[in-house]
Amino acid sequence: MSAPTSDIELRVRYGETDQMGIVYHPNYLVWCEIGRTELMRSLGAAYREIEDGGIRLAVAEVTVRYLSPARYDDLIRVTTTLAELGSRGVTFEYVIAHADTGIRLATARTKLIATDHGGRVTAMPRELREALGAAATP
Amino acid sequence: MSAPTSDIELRVRYGETDQMGIVYHPNYLVWCEIGRTELMRSLGAAYREIEDGGIRLAVAEVTVRYLSPARYDDLIRVTTTLAELGSRGVTFEYVIAHADTGIRLATARTKLIATDHGGRVTAMPRELREALGAAATP
Amino acid sequence: MSAPTSDIELRVRYGETDQMGIVYHPNYLVWCEIGRTELMRSLGAAYREIEDGGIRLAVAEVTVRYLSPARYDDLIRVTTTLAELGSRGVTFEYVIAHADTGIRLATARTKLIATDHGGRVTAMPRELREALGAAATP
Amino acid sequence: MSAPTSDIELRVRYGETDQMGIVYHPNYLVWCEIGRTELMRSLGAAYREIEDGGIRLAVAEVTVRYLSPARYDDLIRVTTTLAELGSRGVTFEYVIAHADTGIRLATARTKLIATDHGGRVTAMPRELREALGAAATP
Repeated sequence: MSAPTSDIELRVRYGETDQMGIVYHPNYLVWCEIGRTELMRSLGAAYREIEDGGIRLAVAEVTVRYLSPARYDDLIRVTTTLAELGSRGVTFEYVIAHADTGIRLATARTKLIATDHGGRVTAMPRELREALGAAATP
Repeated sequence: MSAPTSDIELRVRYGETDQMGIVYHPNYLVWCEIGRTELMRSLGAAYREIEDGGIRLAVAEVTVRYLSPARYDDLIRVTTTLAELGSRGVTFEYVIAHADTGIRLATARTKLIATDHGGRVTAMPRELREALGAAATP
Repeated sequence: MSAPTSDIELRVRYGETDQMGIVYHPNYLVWCEIGRTELMRSLGAAYREIEDGGIRLAVAEVTVRYLSPARYDDLIRVTTTLAELGSRGVTFEYVIAHADTGIRLATARTKLIATDHGGRVTAMPRELREALGAAATP
Repeated sequence: MSAPTSDIELRVRYGETDQMGIVYHPNYLVWCEIGRTELMRSLGAAYREIEDGGIRLAVAEVTVRYLSPARYDDLIRVTTTLAELGSRGVTFEYVIAHADTGIRLATARTKLIATDHGGRVTAMPRELREALGAAATP
């Protein structure tokens, strides 16, 4: 059984470029966040509600490999996959590509851990785990 | 008696540029915020402490006039002046210039209003008004 | 005859918020830029092609009035209107509102001037003026 | 003989926070860039001049491990080390810490590759290699 996945599309904003004429590299992490937000929403775990419930998913580790530059006004597709689900955290993987050509621009991986509002690591609430895990388990 | 003023210097970051090869225009508002933060700090009203005390200064209106472009690695001076002080708000004016040549890059004006943590407009606490006003009144 | 107008919708990104729990105020200018980009595209004047043709529209002046805060994950509508068209510049006006409730969050106005790649103010090319002006003139 | 290293200090900007009340995670990559810019400058290889000479150092891979959150107005120290120097690229490592307490907030590693203005991977110019390598070799 396959891992839960979602696709989003977004258009590169002017302010996301830098003077090299390509997208400024930290912005790919912003796109990853949009990707996992939509994946979580599609699984019934809207991040806004998670935070309202007193839990935050803090980013603990990120890796991005940049393959080809994205440019202003390009239409980008971010494919997000739930890669690992633990009791206190969750790891997502991403493929960022041109929506039209499918050319890969970057791959990324982010590990998030659950914390309470004071920043202490905590167990993910059961409902959140179940929402994320439903599609992940065979 | 002159209005309270402060000068700060900052170096243009790579990520602050866009593909036009100049600083992306909304970033001037970020610099203005740094300018007024330091002016308030110099007057004994550190913004961090203001927020910790339950008051926020929300931006109500901004105007920026762009005169000449700033570029990557330029050393910039932001001169901030407390222009108006009311019971519920405060207005700052800014001159943004090259630190070396003095050439003006932009002028700006921002109006802030005091709110509580729920976002309701409120009177500025007396200590804050006094800190800001001490130098402003003759 | 009415001025050319376009509506776009966007969802507030997590990174667009600040610790006040609302959208960081310079980001409204980013949304305005997306709004005018789409309005120009709808008029047959894609900004990417304008720049490829050697002309840049540099921001000369901005004003934003903030009426009510936008929050993470809100769906926002930006209504952009071409307000003035001159030989060397163009002015856009914006209404930023909640897409669902229609509640106004901000209004803004930005004045742009045409420059060549060296940054010198120049006349807007005839095709650009015609594309922008077609709908603006009675 | 030790690898070339530089320390910079910066103060967390309000706009660098998000609604979690801590620094938005992609911004650590912005700080890394400031760190390596200053390290290169100290080695006689100002990045602005590198780009003016027709070479760009494009980011090929980044990894960040987040250990403890940075907050608004914190004074941050970024210690940058030149970790590896190849014919076509250079790798930097970073320790991001509170300037006052020394508490580690994050570690990071970024790999950059030299490209020409068309984006093609190229050898780093000899002067650049020498400037970076002088202190790196025993």
